[in-house]
Amino acid sequence: MLQPPASALYTRGLSPRQNGDMDDRAGHRVVIVGGGFGGLSAARSLRHAAVDVTLIDRRNFHLFQPLLYQVATGGLSPADIASPLRSVLRRQRNVRVLHGEVTEIESGARRVWMGGTSVDADTLVVAAGVAHHYFGHHDWQALAPGLKSIEDATDIRRRIFEAFERAELEIDPARQQAWMTFVVVGGGPTGVELAGAVGELAHYTLPGDFRRIDTRQARVHLLEGAGRILPTYDARLSPVAAASLKRLGVTVHTDSFVTDVRPDGVTVQSGQRTDTIPARTLLWAAGVKASALGAILARATGAELDRQGRVIVTPDLSVRGHPHVFVIGDLAHVPVPGGQPLPGVAPVAMQEGAYVARLISRRLRGLQTGPFRYRDYGSLAVIGRSAAVAQIGPLRLRGFLAWLTWLFVHLMYLVEFENRVLVLIQWGWNYVTRNRSARLITGEPDDERMGR
Amino acid sequence: MLQPPASALYTRGLSPRQNGDMDDRAGHRVVIVGGGFGGLSAARSLRHAAVDVTLIDRRNFHLFQPLLYQVATGGLSPADIASPLRSVLRRQRNVRVLHGEVTEIESGARRVWMGGTSVDADTLVVAAGVAHHYFGHHDWQALAPGLKSIEDATDIRRRIFEAFERAELEIDPARQQAWMTFVVVGGGPTGVELAGAVGELAHYTLPGDFRRIDTRQARVHLLEGAGRILPTYDARLSPVAAASLKRLGVTVHTDSFVTDVRPDGVTVQSGQRTDTIPARTLLWAAGVKASALGAILARATGAELDRQGRVIVTPDLSVRGHPHVFVIGDLAHVPVPGGQPLPGVAPVAMQEGAYVARLISRRLRGLQTGPFRYRDYGSLAVIGRSAAVAQIGPLRLRGFLAWLTWLFVHLMYLVEFENRVLVLIQWGWNYVTRNRSARLITGEPDDERMGR
Repeated sequence: MLQPPASALYTRGLSPRQNGDMDDRAGHRVVIVGGGFGGLSAARSLRHAAVDVTLIDRRNFHLFQPLLYQVATGGLSPADIASPLRSVLRRQRNVRVLHGEVTEIESGARRVWMGGTSVDADTLVVAAGVAHHYFGHHDWQALAPGLKSIEDATDIRRRIFEAFERAELEIDPARQQAWMTFVVVGGGPTGVELAGAVGELAHYTLPGDFRRIDTRQARVHLLEGAGRILPTYDARLSPVAAASLKRLGVTVHTDSFVTDVRPDGVTVQSGQRTDTIPARTLLWAAGVKASALGAILARATGAELDRQGRVIVTPDLSVRGHPHVFVIGDLAHVPVPGGQPLPGVAPVAMQEGAYVARLISRRLRGLQTGPFRYRDYGSLAVIGRSAAVAQIGPLRLRGFLAWLTWLFVHLMYLVEFENRVLVLIQWGWNYVTRNRSARLITGEPDDERMGR
Repeated sequence: MLQPPASALYTRGLSPRQNGDMDDRAGHRVVIVGGGFGGLSAARSLRHAAVDVTLIDRRNFHLFQPLLYQVATGGLSPADIASPLRSVLRRQRNVRVLHGEVTEIESGARRVWMGGTSVDADTLVVAAGVAHHYFGHHDWQALAPGLKSIEDATDIRRRIFEAFERAELEIDPARQQAWMTFVVVGGGPTGVELAGAVGELAHYTLPGDFRRIDTRQARVHLLEGAGRILPTYDARLSPVAAASLKRLGVTVHTDSFVTDVRPDGVTVQSGQRTDTIPARTLLWAAGVKASALGAILARATGAELDRQGRVIVTPDLSVRGHPHVFVIGDLAHVPVPGGQPLPGVAPVAMQEGAYVARLISRRLRGLQTGPFRYRDYGSLAVIGRSAAVAQIGPLRLRGFLAWLTWLFVHLMYLVEFENRVLVLIQWGWNYVTRNRSARLITGEPDDERMGR
């Protein structure tokens, strides 16, 4: 038996003699690591199965990540898009939730450790997701925060609204313009949504609030390395999105790479050309890498990892040679014959979770299950009030209809859980008034950016 | 002319040549420092006056502090009780809002400095409020946080919900009980409301969410140095409040003083008796001291400070010898002949703000104004769902009627500003379902408390 590292024994404040399995469970024990779209979908899909489920997460809530950019731009509050996992799973009596971080997986993956506490698993489902990736430039992280967690979102919110406050106080025109310049790195859905929301703030929400600056003079630059924004979407939607962004004062730079990030701006390489954009607010939506749990699982099972650190799984989403270990969601690399691996989006993770739950139930009844197949219902990205692009099967939507579709899909998901009708009301209000009442500057400012 | 300290020149990232007055204003210049109940009331009451108002605040929002305990216990989101100052004052064209911290007041108080930026004042209104006071025990602050800011509230929220999570994971019964024991220091309205809300959480919201612990076994201790809780209220209301608290599992200790605070508990002195309460969650609602701006103002004007650092003002709320300088709100010590100085509550601050605004308007028209008189409409404290105590003129209310009164008074204030109808809906929902959907654990945990 592999012992967890000695330091881990104390991590969660338990003394060594308290170590050991907390299990008094009798049935087939399913341990799910991660309460995101994949893990939560797996847990809920197991509600009628004769299994004992343990869901472990570092956070005490499920986060609806697709709306995180709304928190970052002051439209919604964190609690509007986060549901306590215990609430969501309260009535599902075959699930218990443990709040903690998995620090070790034993060889063979029959037991996981959270510091000094261990949990036994007959079946293990790892759905630990991804973090930001700065392509080796770790120092960029503090200057250009990404958008994955609630803390990221309130940090970005602080940066955006503080920038306008600083511009109002600034006397030097060049410095003032740098405070009113925003650079979003990465032209995928998150980058597009973030850039559109900042443009909308500057053009529609904030004018009138300030006395010395005209917030409509704000500039938003969206940088994308590929030849078009939304590169994973249908090619016809990219120019539509770019035109909507332009109306919100967003300048789109394609074939453009960031080569340097400083507190007062970025250097951008576009072909042979190198430009410097003076800007005080830099936001990162460019790249992700796998959770460290991918490497921990690889050590325990010999699983193969791809370049981003994701676990390469077999067609039934299990780890090769370990049919009782599954990886789902953004952490899984699901090979698609002759194509790109499945994208890291919520529908993929949810379908994977439901598939694994079905496979586990059927296996306990002695039944075989065919390989996982992803059913693509479409993609959506929103650019601002009434503007979005959508591809749904053969349909390509844009403008208000796409926006309504986007609103409907996201609200239906939220409403499924809880009293998210409030979010609908908040949105209705925001839509009519262009209000963003959650624009609070909270937390500690970053000294380097503030020039002190 | 007193120069600001050299270090302050760089505090806000402005180079020395950019220093100087940002004023291009022509009329009578009123500078208000602080956007709480007092400062905001003064600014709004000056809306028809022929003055140019500058409102300076460190935060970009007005905070409805009486409901902060609802954020700390997961019932409301920060944005529900915070209104961006720019939104609130958007249509009042004679006001500009500056987001920054006043670091110096020049001798004579005709100019204030925010780092390297200065603003001239013909009339200065200081409404900078108070901070927590640990009676010389600064080291207690990290272990027993107080409840004054949004950050305090989300910190306390994290501590409370993390405690239940840790109890669920804990195997040792004594350690488990320590995680399920909460100590609130201070039996004024804030302490009473906080203790009641924690008791309600444990008894009504959380049971059913956990599998190993019974949250109804949680213990809440409320410590008060005086002979009864709510010592500033009518004596008949204290036993009513104590009985309501008891029903929520709160143990009230009167004549009790904290003599030591540690990560794992407190020492309490009650008369000759010394007890130790093992508890992992300690909350501070015991004492306040004046903002540092009180001392800065005293240096600039020779104003007298009381023991808490508050500025002792004349009957018209000005600083003796400086009729153009006013202090209002919690920072002001308003002597009451033959009685205690006015309490640090929102109604006092709001009436003071309105009074000073009226005085300024009248003075510009050559009119005299009599001394400030506080009109006491009553006091309210809420203990939980349907339970509160209230004194309104000769009336002494308790139970559901007091609770309805409390709800009405607080909602009317919130609704006055903004789309706070949402808060009403949220409360209605919470009341029916006993739900607390905003119970997010966010931010970094405190290592010492966590035992690592």
